[in-house]
Amino acid sequence: MKKMTLILEGHLIDSGILSNVLNFIVGENLDYHIDKIDVGKTRVETTRAEITIYAENDKSLELVLSKVSPLGAYEKGGVNAVFEYSSKDAHAPEGFYSSTNHRTEVYADSKWNAVSQQRMDAVVIKTPEGFVCTKIRDIKKGDPILCGSESVRVYPPAAEKKDDGFAFMTNEVSSERSYDITVDTIAHELRQIRADGGRCIVVCGPVVIHTGGAPALSAMIREGFIQGFLGGNAVAVHDLESFYYGTSLGVDMKSGKPTHGGHNHHMRAINRINGFGSIKAAIQAGDLNNGLMYQIEKSGIPYCLAGSIRDDGPLPETVNDMIEAQAQYSQIIKGADMILMLSSMLHSIGTGNMTPSWVKTVCIDINPAVVTKLADRGTGQAIGIVSDVGLFLNALAVRLELDLS
Amino acid sequence: MKKMTLILEGHLIDSGILSNVLNFIVGENLDYHIDKIDVGKTRVETTRAEITIYAENDKSLELVLSKVSPLGAYEKGGVNAVFEYSSKDAHAPEGFYSSTNHRTEVYADSKWNAVSQQRMDAVVIKTPEGFVCTKIRDIKKGDPILCGSESVRVYPPAAEKKDDGFAFMTNEVSSERSYDITVDTIAHELRQIRADGGRCIVVCGPVVIHTGGAPALSAMIREGFIQGFLGGNAVAVHDLESFYYGTSLGVDMKSGKPTHGGHNHHMRAINRINGFGSIKAAIQAGDLNNGLMYQIEKSGIPYCLAGSIRDDGPLPETVNDMIEAQAQYSQIIKGADMILMLSSMLHSIGTGNMTPSWVKTVCIDINPAVVTKLADRGTGQAIGIVSDVGLFLNALAVRLELDLS
Amino acid sequence: MKKMTLILEGHLIDSGILSNVLNFIVGENLDYHIDKIDVGKTRVETTRAEITIYAENDKSLELVLSKVSPLGAYEKGGVNAVFEYSSKDAHAPEGFYSSTNHRTEVYADSKWNAVSQQRMDAVVIKTPEGFVCTKIRDIKKGDPILCGSESVRVYPPAAEKKDDGFAFMTNEVSSERSYDITVDTIAHELRQIRADGGRCIVVCGPVVIHTGGAPALSAMIREGFIQGFLGGNAVAVHDLESFYYGTSLGVDMKSGKPTHGGHNHHMRAINRINGFGSIKAAIQAGDLNNGLMYQIEKSGIPYCLAGSIRDDGPLPETVNDMIEAQAQYSQIIKGADMILMLSSMLHSIGTGNMTPSWVKTVCIDINPAVVTKLADRGTGQAIGIVSDVGLFLNALAVRLELDLS
Amino acid sequence: MKKMTLILEGHLIDSGILSNVLNFIVGENLDYHIDKIDVGKTRVETTRAEITIYAENDKSLELVLSKVSPLGAYEKGGVNAVFEYSSKDAHAPEGFYSSTNHRTEVYADSKWNAVSQQRMDAVVIKTPEGFVCTKIRDIKKGDPILCGSESVRVYPPAAEKKDDGFAFMTNEVSSERSYDITVDTIAHELRQIRADGGRCIVVCGPVVIHTGGAPALSAMIREGFIQGFLGGNAVAVHDLESFYYGTSLGVDMKSGKPTHGGHNHHMRAINRINGFGSIKAAIQAGDLNNGLMYQIEKSGIPYCLAGSIRDDGPLPETVNDMIEAQAQYSQIIKGADMILMLSSMLHSIGTGNMTPSWVKTVCIDINPAVVTKLADRGTGQAIGIVSDVGLFLNALAVRLELDLS
Repeated sequence: MKKMTLILEGHLIDSGILSNVLNFIVGENLDYHIDKIDVGKTRVETTRAEITIYAENDKSLELVLSKVSPLGAYEKGGVNAVFEYSSKDAHAPEGFYSSTNHRTEVYADSKWNAVSQQRMDAVVIKTPEGFVCTKIRDIKKGDPILCGSESVRVYPPAAEKKDDGFAFMTNEVSSERSYDITVDTIAHELRQIRADGGRCIVVCGPVVIHTGGAPALSAMIREGFIQGFLGGNAVAVHDLESFYYGTSLGVDMKSGKPTHGGHNHHMRAINRINGFGSIKAAIQAGDLNNGLMYQIEKSGIPYCLAGSIRDDGPLPETVNDMIEAQAQYSQIIKGADMILMLSSMLHSIGTGNMTPSWVKTVCIDINPAVVTKLADRGTGQAIGIVSDVGLFLNALAVRLELDLS
Repeated sequence: MKKMTLILEGHLIDSGILSNVLNFIVGENLDYHIDKIDVGKTRVETTRAEITIYAENDKSLELVLSKVSPLGAYEKGGVNAVFEYSSKDAHAPEGFYSSTNHRTEVYADSKWNAVSQQRMDAVVIKTPEGFVCTKIRDIKKGDPILCGSESVRVYPPAAEKKDDGFAFMTNEVSSERSYDITVDTIAHELRQIRADGGRCIVVCGPVVIHTGGAPALSAMIREGFIQGFLGGNAVAVHDLESFYYGTSLGVDMKSGKPTHGGHNHHMRAINRINGFGSIKAAIQAGDLNNGLMYQIEKSGIPYCLAGSIRDDGPLPETVNDMIEAQAQYSQIIKGADMILMLSSMLHSIGTGNMTPSWVKTVCIDINPAVVTKLADRGTGQAIGIVSDVGLFLNALAVRLELDLS
Repeated sequence: MKKMTLILEGHLIDSGILSNVLNFIVGENLDYHIDKIDVGKTRVETTRAEITIYAENDKSLELVLSKVSPLGAYEKGGVNAVFEYSSKDAHAPEGFYSSTNHRTEVYADSKWNAVSQQRMDAVVIKTPEGFVCTKIRDIKKGDPILCGSESVRVYPPAAEKKDDGFAFMTNEVSSERSYDITVDTIAHELRQIRADGGRCIVVCGPVVIHTGGAPALSAMIREGFIQGFLGGNAVAVHDLESFYYGTSLGVDMKSGKPTHGGHNHHMRAINRINGFGSIKAAIQAGDLNNGLMYQIEKSGIPYCLAGSIRDDGPLPETVNDMIEAQAQYSQIIKGADMILMLSSMLHSIGTGNMTPSWVKTVCIDINPAVVTKLADRGTGQAIGIVSDVGLFLNALAVRLELDLS
Repeated sequence: MKKMTLILEGHLIDSGILSNVLNFIVGENLDYHIDKIDVGKTRVETTRAEITIYAENDKSLELVLSKVSPLGAYEKGGVNAVFEYSSKDAHAPEGFYSSTNHRTEVYADSKWNAVSQQRMDAVVIKTPEGFVCTKIRDIKKGDPILCGSESVRVYPPAAEKKDDGFAFMTNEVSSERSYDITVDTIAHELRQIRADGGRCIVVCGPVVIHTGGAPALSAMIREGFIQGFLGGNAVAVHDLESFYYGTSLGVDMKSGKPTHGGHNHHMRAINRINGFGSIKAAIQAGDLNNGLMYQIEKSGIPYCLAGSIRDDGPLPETVNDMIEAQAQYSQIIKGADMILMLSSMLHSIGTGNMTPSWVKTVCIDINPAVVTKLADRGTGQAIGIVSDVGLFLNALAVRLELDLS
């Protein structure tokens, strides 16, 4: 019989973390013994537990460790990290440690060392400058890659105290919730972030244009509430269509009349921009002087339009290489305090994949399944809102006292 | 080979009615011949067609006629209606004519006679006062009941001209549509109906309370935009819970905090009303002095809370007998110009079943499947809106310039 | 400063119950102190905790107690229950205890006494035969009604050990799960219940008929897998339509052709049954000799068709009074081991309201929002499955080796 | 007052085309006059109409023509096509004709000439080999580009006769339809296409893996029912995860247990393939010898995995450049008789954009909104099925008598 002793510290009880750890162990049909537990007696005290796990073999122990490590459990005693060298580019040794999106430390040289560039699904490489999260595709032959979970300590946000207005919203996804409070909470965060010189990034799908949310979002950008914009080709195309032809997906934005012949307006908008060479050139020529893309360019905030298999055009500004698009996205979200995900599952998941768990995320979509999926991924601090994104942005603009005229 | 000649008149081409008629015939594997067709040459002219259908037997002809009759087709030559006597209560002769919700005439005594109490799925009974739509359950033994479709002429709204702002909205259900126009259109209708002394009836589910739409709806009632209210036990219970305990489904309406212990607030609200004997009595006692139910009672508009198998309580005002509830609903919608269906599939279908096709209906729900289902039933004049009902009502209140303070 | 000491026992850690209790206390902005905690050291040992809560006043303490009582927390020391007399029929004293659906005991006469007729949202009345859950509407003037949560102990299923195949399924609702395992799990339960002489009750919506699930469900009834049937008027109407006219909602069940003229087939089916006076009479007359309702009647299992505001007809067997329908539902689920909820939110919520938490429930619907709503209510033992109910029942029939020919 | 005379031919009445044409004219507030109409008198005869449209200016006439041209209307008299030269790469003259996905002819050199490479949203270029649909981005400076709709004739499928089993299914999207018939219809088409040496292409999302549909789909490929495979990185990753680790998204495929630690299995699968350099290399090394990707490679059918912004990895075979991915997709669907779209909105829309309207398409998804969106785009011949794709593929495998052992 093999055994291993784990340590857990933090708000283990109220966060449900201790519950999850024990369930993982039992889920693997292993036995455990809680050797010591010092339960926080009050709401400010933390809990500390030492748990020994018993298994037939080391493999089972390692498996459990890989599962409970993301919850903050780490092996007692401090095992110095093992690094194995990559045998070829874009390939890690089989036992590689796969990162979470939580703050992480590695035990090496007999002390805990912080990991930088935190993101999920990465490997950790030892470099002269420290320990760095690196995507598998960026591994170079000979890189020393962290293996096993024995020398890793993770700090899930749930184990730390969260007591602000944002936190209590993060529990459940429902379309049966009063919109008032959610709008207020987000307006409050936006004001706070702007006042603090922070960064709020928007991920935006074309539904924002169709549902009439573009003027509100443009005003938010104009007034400095948004510091970066992530989308695809479609949101830009429909914004331009809306500016040049007054339609979105061929539907008149003023009368709502589906001008069916307008089915090719989006192609005409693309062609027009192609004539100038780029969105930016069309603005400089004075041809494009309003709308969402105009406001983004004018405000000078960084943005990336990621290409996709379903794109028409695409527009000159669209980034068609996905490796490059992910790199640009990653650059734009650096240092973000909050990310607003507006009705775009594809780009929102892409963004979520590269976002650390301590960044607040807000997902708004009319489809509850999308909201659930997105809110689940942003483990730490995600609000999911099932609502009409056009109405929501306009209600937000009222709270932010924006001039939409 | 049997044959039958049908006549069709009205806007047959642009409405798609002629298309549907021919497809029904072909769908039954029968042949047809268009004997005469006088196509309306301009947008104001109507079309008239005579079509002979050929079949092996009379039964096939009758079957086709029963299918195309709801589209306005009627047999050439004027066949006097056949009435058979019911052999027992709540039972029609096998060949009974089943009504549509469109305006209908019966050929009898060598002339066309209007049918009253129009609703779908009813039989037509000949009475001394004329021809009357009657539910099967209301048939009395000996009633003369119209059989066959040969002597019936139906006027579907699609065959008549519709050229107002409401009409163009009725095409498709989508969550990807600008909310602006739909809100404007409905606000315009509401003002018009009020100005004309018309009647707008609301069908309302509890989601209106949860999503914070109650103050807006209450203000609409207060200002005379609504002339009748149809709902169930739940919407009233949650409104009362909201008034007495500040929660809805146990969620605090101000802070949005899910006060889980609040799971029994709705029972306490019911018990409190039971203590007074009725909602009305609680108002008279001064105990209940705000909220949706208060506003309904105060405004004196007729209302009905229909019971259901899932009710808690129910409240004293809830009508637990479904036959009685349908009767009250039916009474309240009499003469309605518009029906707003707010997030309640159950009560909305119930209402739709008894509504003539010339009444405008607007269905708002966050679930596209519900909206599609409801909009499909209201063949003539239904707008389906996929949106957040709380946000929608508040946007409507802004357009109607209502004071929500 | 007031205080109160609570006791908690059972699987508090792995179930997350201790976590929830502490969060409720903090959610009310109160302080607590864990006086004693004896954490179960292994997977079979239970945990016991004594927690003192501090508040400004007794009201806050009572509020917290009302929230944590459903999780199994009870006041230390054994406070004899207080009963107040009802001052009028259908009305409880304001401080009444509102029951959960978990097994419950009341401390009275210095000992813990079991409560019978357990259901949620009821009051507890002291009778000569013991303590009985009673709906508010059934209270009689003068009934002694339990007040406060101080003398109540609740046993949530989560605090007890659950280690079977059913348990692990109950975690999440998703349409992205392999159907194989869910079908196997349910088939296994059905066999087990039949072998043990247990009771499986079906709650069934009309979608089961439309999607072609009726033959599979009928075979399950025929072979003794189902011991009770709960539905509404619609499922019976469409089953009869299917038998008499080969259509469901007017759609041909064999060819799938939407025979639009078939829109009145369901009315003809109702009329035909009305001619016999009842479904039962139609069977006895030999007119109805196949289908779901036929099989239910033939098998002699108890059933109830609850009426609703949207009913056509209704059929003679439909129970139009909701008080009576709830009573019949309640009688049929008595002693149920499992409840299968098949695509009927209305009747499933109605059933869930009266079901104790120890009854296994399985909810199948193609709409994830419905499944989430239903699975959430059945706190203890609910599986939620997002799937096509017709395909699902047929896959289940294959696993149960049923002859559908 | 300007005027223009249009000709329409084909099944104009029963298809609803004439109705749509008149509604477009009226929708632009223009008047029309039907100069001649020769209505097909029987179900096999076609209709021919000449309609003169009146407008204030030529622009209005051109606008209407651009809208009714996709429905088959063309200008009377035969106007020779006007070609303007592109002034720069990827840019068309402003008045360019934007193509539909229907069969198209251009009137030039006083005769009608077929257009090749038909797809929607393209321009038509005159080349020595004929008239060719070309994407805007592929335009070269100096290309002669068709302008205006005056010399174009389009043949929408609706105007031609369709009388097979596939056609009648294409009417509506609903989750309330018997699965039997849809499964039968598709199985019949698959057998027919295989027998005829035709081509059926699958578009496939990762949900097929999660829901247990992969063995059925693999067997369909093995038995020659599928001639091309379109997907993204995710479906391949999860298939490999399933093969190497027995999980999909970390959920055990056999037991259904969510092995939460399995959250990084998909990264390990990617890393493993990276070790070999490609999926193909892993198969050649004998490391990968079962599953969907294995079967695709083994069967030698062409496939393309299109990259996206949300990809992990990506796998070596994933095409990260969207321009290249669209080119490969386009190549694979060439000559397709049917396209099965399995739970992947992104790739299905991408595919639909490049598919001619005469290709049968079948869209299966559990989300009705997705199915509606996809079925609407494939105007001609699209079946939309709201169902559980795993159950559906397995039911299909039974009908096709495939060995899944």
